[in-house]
Amino acid sequence: MGVTRELAEFAAGARYEDLPEAVVHEAKRDVINVLGVALYASRDPSLQVFIRHFEAEGGRQRATVWGAGLKTTLANAALANGYTAHLEDYDDTHFPTVMHPTSPTLPAAFAPAEELGRSGRDLIAAVALGIEVCCRICVAVHPWHYDEGWHITGTMGVFGAAIAASRILGLDAEATQRALGAAGTQAAGVREAFGTMAKPFHAGRAAQAGLVSALLAQKGFTSAPAILEGRRGIGEVMSPGRDFSRATDGLGRRWEIFNNGLKPYACGVVSHPAIDAAVALRARPRFDAGAVQAIEALVHPLVPELMGRPEPRAGLEGKFSVQHCIAVGLIDGAAYPDQFSDAKVNDPRVAALRAKVRLTVQESMPEDACVLRLTLADGSSLEERIDHATGSPQNPLSDDRLADKFLTLASPALGAAGARSLLDRLWRLDEAASVAGLVP
Amino acid sequence: MGVTRELAEFAAGARYEDLPEAVVHEAKRDVINVLGVALYASRDPSLQVFIRHFEAEGGRQRATVWGAGLKTTLANAALANGYTAHLEDYDDTHFPTVMHPTSPTLPAAFAPAEELGRSGRDLIAAVALGIEVCCRICVAVHPWHYDEGWHITGTMGVFGAAIAASRILGLDAEATQRALGAAGTQAAGVREAFGTMAKPFHAGRAAQAGLVSALLAQKGFTSAPAILEGRRGIGEVMSPGRDFSRATDGLGRRWEIFNNGLKPYACGVVSHPAIDAAVALRARPRFDAGAVQAIEALVHPLVPELMGRPEPRAGLEGKFSVQHCIAVGLIDGAAYPDQFSDAKVNDPRVAALRAKVRLTVQESMPEDACVLRLTLADGSSLEERIDHATGSPQNPLSDDRLADKFLTLASPALGAAGARSLLDRLWRLDEAASVAGLVP
Repeated sequence: MGVTRELAEFAAGARYEDLPEAVVHEAKRDVINVLGVALYASRDPSLQVFIRHFEAEGGRQRATVWGAGLKTTLANAALANGYTAHLEDYDDTHFPTVMHPTSPTLPAAFAPAEELGRSGRDLIAAVALGIEVCCRICVAVHPWHYDEGWHITGTMGVFGAAIAASRILGLDAEATQRALGAAGTQAAGVREAFGTMAKPFHAGRAAQAGLVSALLAQKGFTSAPAILEGRRGIGEVMSPGRDFSRATDGLGRRWEIFNNGLKPYACGVVSHPAIDAAVALRARPRFDAGAVQAIEALVHPLVPELMGRPEPRAGLEGKFSVQHCIAVGLIDGAAYPDQFSDAKVNDPRVAALRAKVRLTVQESMPEDACVLRLTLADGSSLEERIDHATGSPQNPLSDDRLADKFLTLASPALGAAGARSLLDRLWRLDEAASVAGLVP
Repeated sequence: MGVTRELAEFAAGARYEDLPEAVVHEAKRDVINVLGVALYASRDPSLQVFIRHFEAEGGRQRATVWGAGLKTTLANAALANGYTAHLEDYDDTHFPTVMHPTSPTLPAAFAPAEELGRSGRDLIAAVALGIEVCCRICVAVHPWHYDEGWHITGTMGVFGAAIAASRILGLDAEATQRALGAAGTQAAGVREAFGTMAKPFHAGRAAQAGLVSALLAQKGFTSAPAILEGRRGIGEVMSPGRDFSRATDGLGRRWEIFNNGLKPYACGVVSHPAIDAAVALRARPRFDAGAVQAIEALVHPLVPELMGRPEPRAGLEGKFSVQHCIAVGLIDGAAYPDQFSDAKVNDPRVAALRAKVRLTVQESMPEDACVLRLTLADGSSLEERIDHATGSPQNPLSDDRLADKFLTLASPALGAAGARSLLDRLWRLDEAASVAGLVP
């Protein structure tokens, strides 16, 4: 049996009861995290670009654009919710592959689940299985696919979205396989788009493509049965190397969702060890931001590759500037969305500190580790070593810190009481008879 | 100036009056050809898969699904019209690159042109410039991009669609450049999908992606300014080799649209020399289909690569079986859509002849040439050599034969009188004050 078919059979055949309790809990955490982030981002003016487009096109009010006070078509809702989920770069990260699986996956499941009145357990299973299949495919093509210049969240996200939507629509293995075929041949998104609206758009497009693929497959759409492993399939065409045995190894016994971490900081994940270090240095008694003469960061090679941006000029660019991240970590002790406003990026004090950052690549440095060294005006130095950044699989964000993150992010959109009430319902998502009306 | 910007400035700045008369005529021919093909294909049951999806989603009746008696949203109309334009594999082909530029380009322009009441000249300029930019980008990444496994019509089609839609919306160079950025990062479609609904879906998705990119760019969407030539841009990521100087060389002086040929046969273009040869052999006095013992085809290497399919089982597969194409050429003397029905593919007489075809690759054989040799029961042989297939740039389909093709294809959808009347209006497209209501 080919890998595409095997993954389709796994996803279509699994029952909620088959999911280990810890997988259910982790899926719930991923839902809570991404809904918080999306609700926060729903207030971003850029969402209006899409909403004006939706209003011009019209359509049935089938599903909610989270936080926007608007219902629209299934395809539009998936696009907008995938966009806001990824806009702040504050969603989850599958550490082995730098994939953000929930942003494309959850919106593709949520829109039809809401319309069809599916249960909380249906949604949890759809999201858990979508994330699982998606991350396993990513593992099979990593690191070659990402290194080639692809934004793996936009490309491979279509598979998580297709699986999650297929589950909600109740597709069998054969139809799920056709949905995967339709979705895979829509896989798109290059890293050139980083730092613009097109990056979060990739996640929205992946959500939309996966959902529409499942809707078309349900109606009889035909597509390549071996979209992953075929001679001209996604593996061969989009990844100079690949090992699809890794996609199915231990399927249903070992869960990739446990390698999916929740971000404490609202920016590119490779900068997180450096922010942990900066926040820790700021708390040292001898620290004085005004006295910092030089900042040296010993980092993994991906850090300058993905986030070496010494002079960001807009908030979105700041999210991909490790120099900016270190500077706000030292000045504000935080890297929340407020630290990535246009105003903050253009703050002269931040810019001055940013200019002092020097990156030194260490081939032996793990991706979730770093060393940060400050040289002060008196010639002395301060140093902090981080072994596992907060939010990495070895140092997961706690449920309490996740709850704080959700309340901080959702409150501006829903009010404090609304955010608290939604959080309570999300922790008990497995008890919800229907997800219709769950998220405003 | 980068290539993305240069192409955007060219497309945004050109006036209809700047287009050579022959370019205008060729663009008109491309429009006539693709509308004929799409109107024919609008009767295909597979279109209903999309229409049922559109009906479920709803939306404003902004633009026509050609031949379907239906108006829908701009995005849906572009998707459906791109799908039917490419469904029969009977659209145009840019010979240097095997790209089918009009199927993604025309629908992206037509939908907004219809709603905005743009003139025939506006439409012609949008299509001519969309095809020109798209084909030039294809030339820059050919053959590497296609050889890698990409369906170039699906991938690079987004650029033709984005340019054509940007023209109709009246975007300036800066906004057109943003539309190209949004479109390029949606470029998708692998050759693994050939032989399924997903192949023509690629053209529809390209049309939709390009149009939506222009609509979003108009509203302020930001994207990578150097989507083609950037370090992680489409060229670098999607093509192992590339030469973007070829995209801008002689821009506005030399026109790639003249390398775009109109297909006489409703199947993959690499089979066309073999069909010309089969049709010619059938007309020989000594020919007798029942007496054929062996069929040898000396062909370009791409023929077995793209269309070596000895046992097709469905009509769509027959379009990518050179063996089937040769058999129907010999039996029916034609390769019209009727020759690619499921019934015809499963006709035992066709299957028997198909089984006798042997392909011999000749490295020196040009793509638009071939030699076909029949061995008859009495041991004698018949041979036909084709130097330039009908529809190739050196042997273009005549206006008369194009008119016949259009009338044959459009009549089942519009009736003979309706098809004739539309054809008359299309030959005078440059005189039309508005394209609203032009195509039913």
